[in-house]
Amino acid sequence: MSATIDETHDPARRSFVSSANDPSGDFPIQNLPLGVFSRGKDGKRSAGIGIGDQILDLHAAHRAGLLPAEIPEWTVADSSLNSLFALGPRALRTLRKAISAALDAGSSGEAARHRASDLLVPMGACTMYRPTAVPNYTDFYAGIHHAKAAGALLTPENPLPANYKWVPIAYHGRASSVQVGQGVVRRPIGQRPPSVDGGTPGFGPCDRLDFELEMGFYLSGGNELGNPIPVARASEQIVGYSLLNDWSARDVQRWEMYPLGPFLSKSFATSVSPWVVTADALAPFRIPAMVRPHGDPQPLKYLLDDDDQKSGGLDISLKVFLTTEKMRAARDVPVEILSSNAKYLYWTPAQMVAHHTINGCNLLPGDLIGTGTISGPTDAELSSMLEFTSAGTRPITLPNGERRGFLHDGDEIRFEGRCTREGFASIGFGVCVGTIAASHQTELESRAA
Amino acid sequence: MSATIDETHDPARRSFVSSANDPSGDFPIQNLPLGVFSRGKDGKRSAGIGIGDQILDLHAAHRAGLLPAEIPEWTVADSSLNSLFALGPRALRTLRKAISAALDAGSSGEAARHRASDLLVPMGACTMYRPTAVPNYTDFYAGIHHAKAAGALLTPENPLPANYKWVPIAYHGRASSVQVGQGVVRRPIGQRPPSVDGGTPGFGPCDRLDFELEMGFYLSGGNELGNPIPVARASEQIVGYSLLNDWSARDVQRWEMYPLGPFLSKSFATSVSPWVVTADALAPFRIPAMVRPHGDPQPLKYLLDDDDQKSGGLDISLKVFLTTEKMRAARDVPVEILSSNAKYLYWTPAQMVAHHTINGCNLLPGDLIGTGTISGPTDAELSSMLEFTSAGTRPITLPNGERRGFLHDGDEIRFEGRCTREGFASIGFGVCVGTIAASHQTELESRAA
Repeated sequence: MSATIDETHDPARRSFVSSANDPSGDFPIQNLPLGVFSRGKDGKRSAGIGIGDQILDLHAAHRAGLLPAEIPEWTVADSSLNSLFALGPRALRTLRKAISAALDAGSSGEAARHRASDLLVPMGACTMYRPTAVPNYTDFYAGIHHAKAAGALLTPENPLPANYKWVPIAYHGRASSVQVGQGVVRRPIGQRPPSVDGGTPGFGPCDRLDFELEMGFYLSGGNELGNPIPVARASEQIVGYSLLNDWSARDVQRWEMYPLGPFLSKSFATSVSPWVVTADALAPFRIPAMVRPHGDPQPLKYLLDDDDQKSGGLDISLKVFLTTEKMRAARDVPVEILSSNAKYLYWTPAQMVAHHTINGCNLLPGDLIGTGTISGPTDAELSSMLEFTSAGTRPITLPNGERRGFLHDGDEIRFEGRCTREGFASIGFGVCVGTIAASHQTELESRAA
Repeated sequence: MSATIDETHDPARRSFVSSANDPSGDFPIQNLPLGVFSRGKDGKRSAGIGIGDQILDLHAAHRAGLLPAEIPEWTVADSSLNSLFALGPRALRTLRKAISAALDAGSSGEAARHRASDLLVPMGACTMYRPTAVPNYTDFYAGIHHAKAAGALLTPENPLPANYKWVPIAYHGRASSVQVGQGVVRRPIGQRPPSVDGGTPGFGPCDRLDFELEMGFYLSGGNELGNPIPVARASEQIVGYSLLNDWSARDVQRWEMYPLGPFLSKSFATSVSPWVVTADALAPFRIPAMVRPHGDPQPLKYLLDDDDQKSGGLDISLKVFLTTEKMRAARDVPVEILSSNAKYLYWTPAQMVAHHTINGCNLLPGDLIGTGTISGPTDAELSSMLEFTSAGTRPITLPNGERRGFLHDGDEIRFEGRCTREGFASIGFGVCVGTIAASHQTELESRAA
């Protein structure tokens, strides 16, 4: 039941939606990502599939009789994808095949094409929403280069914890503040570390605001409380992937996180890209799990599966762009500040699912799991400002002369992700964007002034 | 808008439900806790109010015209209390007054009494469910005696973290595995610390299974993302309280929790008592916030409110009982293994809400917040086995000669809570119960044997 390469991945397949045939676009007919949209602002939400610069309205497609019998109407008429995801991989694969055929330039008859055209809405005229209602959000720490780099800065005496190579470390994140990555992120207020040991902590707007480049993935049917998901069956539980920005208030984090972990330093916002690129669409871009450096232990048996070791990794190239307010005013192009790749994850998504449930914890349809920050081994691949500015001590200089240690109000952070492989159509993730707004306190003060 | 003492607390008020007039009972007419129940097993769920040994069916009461106009039918016909709680404190207070009058032995006319009687179902014939759907669950660490005692065992070099007296420390808990405290809790499987530094971790059923005695409270309307709830308005956001058992796998916890906090060691189960005792019912049992020992700092301004300092504490006496399988077979009475009191919390619930939202994090109706383990200053008030057996090194001996360092399969842990004050009717919380079942692995092995 794991994702395999089939006719939907055929690079020769083209869509009658001409924008989908642009080889530099994110959403060719080989991609078909799922999302929640409305026409205009505040319209009725429903499920949609991205194709070129258009959205195929899945609710309308259902009413037009284009969807397979496995897909009940209410699962695509909902304001979230939870119930669609709960149908499981078999039904979603059938959906993918049906939509691929319906949008195909060659195989669709004139009538079918006409019918499908009526169901398309221009992306630019739509609003996108959080893909699922996120019953639970968990964030892993599977980027080993990040763990080493961040560890060296936060806890130099112990950069990589003793458990790291055994335990896929994770913590529960805040589900309510997961938002779609296309709007504003308000700078949080909070306690900052005292300037001297034993002193009074600071209080006010965070002044070490950061991003973390991650992937997120969504769960299908999940499991009953008390019944772990074996690693060999874990990947079929993953519906698809988004880009994820784990916004972080570093000063708040340093002061609050001992001993129970990050809390307010993360819970003010987590952004996900609006499109969920399905595990099926990603089949051509699977790679072996990360080869463990010589001397690293074998994972324990409950985390080890042959197929997962062979194809549990993902080759997704990731980029982060920064646009400051000044750049925006001058109409400067966004600056690429780093690039990385999902292949740097020490644990596969299937290992994360198996670990998450080994104690019996129940995962629910639509649950979101973050991979942890995906840094690479080189300086150009450090995937948070904490890392690439050495906790703000080595600010970067932008082409217009501005310097950044951490994020300023008005800064926009944009993530992009893309998969390419010889002999296959390249597919993308769209973007995950957030622009920093002044903190509530700053706003109140400026109004009072 | 904070809870005040009114006619519903009048100790002279008696109900025509005779079991409610037993002074040792938990649910006199002065209590009126909210819960979700069904008649028999798997019946249709609806909201109910506990009165003596009966449940008043709120959905039926609505149809009978007994509820005030502020309570729409769908909020009491739901399978959770989220939408009822979202109505806010004013509506819930009106509901309390109406039900108090309807169940009053004196003020109800014969007809009204007859009508109300028809809406009663014996508790013993009902199934209770988790009170809310728990969109998010957060667990604080506000029991300072627990923090000191656990800290001395887990991190002796640093028993009370430097931030403790400034930051109401908390972590995100797992919402999906919050269950009603009346069933079985399966012993989790997981990684245990290696026996030597750098060695291979153990793997298998947890062998240091523990409970933690806490209170939980439920949120009303919550707040919009980016808009903190000021401490002065925080207590009106709390609908009511339950007993909460934060089951803990100590071996798993010790190995996994550095650096991001507890994860699998807690996420296998959290139990809450089925009845939510409202903040209104608790009005007579408010006490001043804990007096801080000389030398402790004043809380920062965003955590400080005069009214909250005067009456933000709670006087709730708490008890924990253990029944082993052997005791059950011999029909021995449960052994009281410890008692404590909610007054030992270093931070008030209002301070927890204000802190939780100061960064803009949005709380949702029905969200559950745990206080953290409520140990007291004496040995008899240490509220987890970790603490009172010194991490298993000083097992307790039960009257039948059995010894316990941590929990065995078949052990039942029961929490009880009760409020008493001269001049007021005593009210109780019912019970929060869990019985340890063998781990999945043990079960598979015994089937294979």
